[in-house]
Amino acid sequence: MSGVNIIGPSVPNMPWQDRPDTPQAGPLWRYSGNPVVGRNPAPGVARIFNSAVLPVNGKFAGVFRGEQTDGVPHIYWGESADGLKWDIANERIPFVNDKGEPFLPRYAYDPRFIKVEDTYYAIWCQDFYGASIGMAKTTDFRTFTRLENPFIPYNRNAVLFPRKVNGNFLMLSRPSDSGHTPFGDIFISESPDLVYWGKHRHVMGRGHAWWESVKIGGGAAPIETTEGWLMFYHGVSGTCNGFVYSIGGAILDIGNPSIVKYRCSRFLLTPEEWYEERGFVPNVVFPCATIHDAATGRIAVYYGAADSYVGLAFGKLDEIAAYIKEHSRLTDEDTEIGMR
Amino acid sequence: MSGVNIIGPSVPNMPWQDRPDTPQAGPLWRYSGNPVVGRNPAPGVARIFNSAVLPVNGKFAGVFRGEQTDGVPHIYWGESADGLKWDIANERIPFVNDKGEPFLPRYAYDPRFIKVEDTYYAIWCQDFYGASIGMAKTTDFRTFTRLENPFIPYNRNAVLFPRKVNGNFLMLSRPSDSGHTPFGDIFISESPDLVYWGKHRHVMGRGHAWWESVKIGGGAAPIETTEGWLMFYHGVSGTCNGFVYSIGGAILDIGNPSIVKYRCSRFLLTPEEWYEERGFVPNVVFPCATIHDAATGRIAVYYGAADSYVGLAFGKLDEIAAYIKEHSRLTDEDTEIGMR
Repeated sequence: MSGVNIIGPSVPNMPWQDRPDTPQAGPLWRYSGNPVVGRNPAPGVARIFNSAVLPVNGKFAGVFRGEQTDGVPHIYWGESADGLKWDIANERIPFVNDKGEPFLPRYAYDPRFIKVEDTYYAIWCQDFYGASIGMAKTTDFRTFTRLENPFIPYNRNAVLFPRKVNGNFLMLSRPSDSGHTPFGDIFISESPDLVYWGKHRHVMGRGHAWWESVKIGGGAAPIETTEGWLMFYHGVSGTCNGFVYSIGGAILDIGNPSIVKYRCSRFLLTPEEWYEERGFVPNVVFPCATIHDAATGRIAVYYGAADSYVGLAFGKLDEIAAYIKEHSRLTDEDTEIGMR
Repeated sequence: MSGVNIIGPSVPNMPWQDRPDTPQAGPLWRYSGNPVVGRNPAPGVARIFNSAVLPVNGKFAGVFRGEQTDGVPHIYWGESADGLKWDIANERIPFVNDKGEPFLPRYAYDPRFIKVEDTYYAIWCQDFYGASIGMAKTTDFRTFTRLENPFIPYNRNAVLFPRKVNGNFLMLSRPSDSGHTPFGDIFISESPDLVYWGKHRHVMGRGHAWWESVKIGGGAAPIETTEGWLMFYHGVSGTCNGFVYSIGGAILDIGNPSIVKYRCSRFLLTPEEWYEERGFVPNVVFPCATIHDAATGRIAVYYGAADSYVGLAFGKLDEIAAYIKEHSRLTDEDTEIGMR
């Protein structure tokens, strides 16, 4: 170990494969069995992608973006013994309100799944008279109770931190417009109670580097490390044939995550394989979750591929942190508190 | 009186002029001395418009959008003995942070000015790494202390209610995009402390009627009446030569203002006069404040005209409420709680 460690539980049965001998652009490499979720994975669901998982009761489980065959996305529950082969439920998650009554979003996509203390939170993007963030909590994985929508539209890519900081919940999000949004920075917000949110700060903007020059957005829940919060996010570049989504990496200050300590000027993963370059939205790798093991520093990144598949990549914390630090390039907007 | 009354203080010295004999499109008529603030009203300030005033210590005072001669808008203090002739300060309001240190927005525009309990609040749109809402409080009209920005970008047209409802502050706002925003609905948010905001609800969307079919946005602070909250707002239609801004009227439920009781399908005022049709942005009437008298039901509406002037219009609550009710047309989105 290079002296940087994951702060968190050990997950000895996490999925893993050693780095192959083939050349890699950065510190991540792909699982040889990708994609881990293929086409038509459940009745009436054409594609699953942009989905988030966690260790649950010695196995793995999570929330999956299922694009129904009517074109509307909803959230499906999935379970796996090994984090590689996934059983996706045949029905969407039956979200309820705080009275236990059915309260489904009209559509829901790009879920994240985060455990804070003893509760599991699903967060997604939905219609709130415009695209905005929805969220729900569960402790038994049967009842998912919706919480107040944290923000007014338009917003996407919300990510909850896995623990409170200075007594408050923390959430990353990415203000958007009502369409495909040709801009976008990452903000952070605080909440004492998951009802009211405030103390909003700017974390970081679209980057210098071309691969993240159009917009960025939060990806996996930040991983607590001895160097700070390791954040896998997505960065977007524009081409004559549309957007290209890559995976980027940054390390945020542990006590004040609106301050970026290191930000990698090079992508960590970019579309290369057939399942990333071909699909409903070609050229997308879109990280939504990690499973990681404090004992070994191993990290498995789950990412959506081409809005059609779920992919899996691996890396080791010490190598990822060293790569981010070696290629770090910061702006004033990255290092400031982010209050205007 | 028709049985509808303003709930609030009496302001016997409010500006007033009786309705003229000339034809009027709706229940408002213009002050014959308009515009009440003309061009080059202070050194280095080319135009003042979209500004908000209140009764203060037996006179009138408020916050004015001053477009500097470098093209950057900032907020200026203004005072008046009669609400008609205004003295605009030569320097911008020196906003400070909670330590008393200078903390000016990089730009600030379209201020509102609202008294809640014993404190006066200025709210405006500013750069928060994107257009969003800024706010400050004052009790002595010398020290204006900035509060937390209530929302992440992009947002405009924030309006605070003049009293707490169910123990919380209430704020209207209008989510936007990063440009001229060809869409926009009015939302409402709650805060126990002006730091954290939540329980967001949709109030009403752009309207059926052509004059408000592109977008709408909060205008003057709602007036508490025995029928509900009387809200003057702006509605926008699109033409081949740009947007046209009119003044609309609605009445919101007193205990749950996310519910619209009446919404006038006809504008209350639309650009007609030279100072509304000519200017930096032609064809704009943009309400930001009212002064009103509970004893008589008289209402004076202050509005920005053509992004160049401040105009003043008058009306009587009973006539305005009757007009709104007579021409009310509601949608499901208007009458529902506004939670998805």
